[in-house]
Amino acid sequence: MKVLLGISNRHVHLNEEDYKTLFGDSPLENIKDLVQPGQFSSDKKVSIKTEKRTIDNVRLLGPLRSYTQVEISKTDSYALGINPPVRTSGDLDGSEVVTIIGPAGEVTKPCCIIANRHLHINPKEREALGLTNIEKITAKYVGEKTTIFEDVYIKETPDGVLELHLDTDDGNGCLAKTGEEIEILI
Amino acid sequence: MKVLLGISNRHVHLNEEDYKTLFGDSPLENIKDLVQPGQFSSDKKVSIKTEKRTIDNVRLLGPLRSYTQVEISKTDSYALGINPPVRTSGDLDGSEVVTIIGPAGEVTKPCCIIANRHLHINPKEREALGLTNIEKITAKYVGEKTTIFEDVYIKETPDGVLELHLDTDDGNGCLAKTGEEIEILI
Repeated sequence: MKVLLGISNRHVHLNEEDYKTLFGDSPLENIKDLVQPGQFSSDKKVSIKTEKRTIDNVRLLGPLRSYTQVEISKTDSYALGINPPVRTSGDLDGSEVVTIIGPAGEVTKPCCIIANRHLHINPKEREALGLTNIEKITAKYVGEKTTIFEDVYIKETPDGVLELHLDTDDGNGCLAKTGEEIEILI
Repeated sequence: MKVLLGISNRHVHLNEEDYKTLFGDSPLENIKDLVQPGQFSSDKKVSIKTEKRTIDNVRLLGPLRSYTQVEISKTDSYALGINPPVRTSGDLDGSEVVTIIGPAGEVTKPCCIIANRHLHINPKEREALGLTNIEKITAKYVGEKTTIFEDVYIKETPDGVLELHLDTDDGNGCLAKTGEEIEILI
């Protein structure tokens, strides 16, 4: 079956404390709803700095979370000279230290990961698709550079909308774009 | 069977006329042999410029060729704001216009492509592997982000050494590195 595809560019999540450090009293504004309910692109951008380099204009996604997390691609990691692990969002075990810079201040902490390939889903759809007993699936993008992606982790949330997320390395490698479809091979 | 893997970062090939325009009388020096016989990383770098942005420090590969060609990734193309076609090296049909800047001058011409996935091979090995009647193959990289790449074009040259080339989007997407092995699924 085919599902909606989203290509995630590098981005940042912040907890409340770090948001205040970086942006002070400036309110966090929603400029665009994302597909997953409640998630949005905010009006805020930060810079990500390491000893080797700084990447500017990295989007902060909302709402604020219980943890601060920077998600980049392997290509970004070479530019920054770091070696972040591939992780599910929220699992910061072994994450790389980076400095996040905002207009009001900066935060330096281990928080940088490469997000794994993942499929957003809710419990009802997961059961309907027979995915309750498996941790990951395989997906195929058909095009001029057809690619089969294994190791796509199932990310179940109560209100999850069926959507498969790739980072820009995977997505651009097969010339895919956000909003297209990708086939799930279970 | 497994073959050697090479991940190609963005790079440039120049013809003799364009080399003279960009570098004047400075000799082209070989600083590192590549796997394919006679091909090398040179001591020269250029900048690639479009209306949107400039990417600096793009390596010139040697020796000089009969055509000038800039090979970038899809990720690079978004940064540069252009839409180059996926092509076999030397096929500049529909290529994008970019400006190549060197210390002695610059050249603006349609020459920018995204190189297709390809397998270098010589006629003898091609026959031994039973690949004489097919144009492309499939390859599988096994790791933490296992990926199966279809549309890998066979690039036969008289002295070709068996080596599969991916660009940085494909290669970084599956966390692969130059010098590792990738499995050919024929």
